[in-house]
Amino acid sequence: MKYPSALIQLIRELGKLPGVGPKSAQRLAFHLFNLPEEEVRELAQAILNAKNSLKQCKLCYNITDTELCSICTDHQRNHELICVVEQPADLLAIERSGEYDGLYHVLHGSLSPMNGIGPDQLTIAALFERLQGFDQNTGEVILATATTVEGEATAMYLARLLTDIGITTSRIAYGLPVGGDLEYADEVTLGRAITNRRKL
Amino acid sequence: MKYPSALIQLIRELGKLPGVGPKSAQRLAFHLFNLPEEEVRELAQAILNAKNSLKQCKLCYNITDTELCSICTDHQRNHELICVVEQPADLLAIERSGEYDGLYHVLHGSLSPMNGIGPDQLTIAALFERLQGFDQNTGEVILATATTVEGEATAMYLARLLTDIGITTSRIAYGLPVGGDLEYADEVTLGRAITNRRKL
Repeated sequence: MKYPSALIQLIRELGKLPGVGPKSAQRLAFHLFNLPEEEVRELAQAILNAKNSLKQCKLCYNITDTELCSICTDHQRNHELICVVEQPADLLAIERSGEYDGLYHVLHGSLSPMNGIGPDQLTIAALFERLQGFDQNTGEVILATATTVEGEATAMYLARLLTDIGITTSRIAYGLPVGGDLEYADEVTLGRAITNRRKL
Repeated sequence: MKYPSALIQLIRELGKLPGVGPKSAQRLAFHLFNLPEEEVRELAQAILNAKNSLKQCKLCYNITDTELCSICTDHQRNHELICVVEQPADLLAIERSGEYDGLYHVLHGSLSPMNGIGPDQLTIAALFERLQGFDQNTGEVILATATTVEGEATAMYLARLLTDIGITTSRIAYGLPVGGDLEYADEVTLGRAITNRRKL
């Protein structure tokens, strides 16, 4: 049997999404086929609206629908703290923790020479521009890139440049996840958790 | 931080898809945000096109973009065999096996009184209408509904009605999946595989 071309096209487009393989793409396509027209239209419209109205914050490169995002314009927050993250999703994860009230800087990636991603492909120049008006005595930059090889390399790279210009720099803590069993922790994590133990 | 409303709306719409939880919906939304505008437009367009141009075949209720699907209009196929399946995806799975050259009938579901799905919610009346011109001596209906409780109930229900009007009816075989280890087969499947053994 030959698939109708509109179905082939839909399955191909859905299959380009991350985490959606050929089987899931087919399942999603059949699901959309069975939905009422109204709901399908809402989905397509939400995709187009989001693409049209969302952009990057001019200051921190977070996702926003205004010139500056709601974090950068919030005067209740501590403007002397900047937390550097790889992706907007990381920013949201930290916001959900409720433990941080400073600003952010979204790199939109991490250094990965193998994939052709150097400092110029990230928002690093913009970060250092922001830091020109930064108070060296009270300000601090927290490096919250991932604890992957690329994330670590990015953090090390930034740490060197930041200490060169005299800015207090810190790295988020390594250790056991809360609720985690020692038995199931990998050795590197467990080793870091012991090295970085805190006095009670 | 408050999410921009277009982002909230997109995450909500994506989260309605089957197999997409809140986390995946967020990941998909960020992915779409990072895509070039052209590709996002293609996805939205593919969704709308599929919804506008695809419909059910007037005869077998398969998905098609013409009045009758390419299987129903194929005169190379055996028009005296009708294979009854629950969903268009099941039809495609059988087509991929390459073992079947008859026609199909897609029920678009299975009997499930608990969920309010009776014979009238499926395409059963249309199946029996098709069968009015069917040759009782040479024709055969293969019941290929799922081997779940609902699929079995649907097959039993149809089998009773079909034998009542004198039409040869068969059920797809139960047994071990090809490449399957006996050790890992469940008891019911293994029992069926033994009961339904074939002489060599």
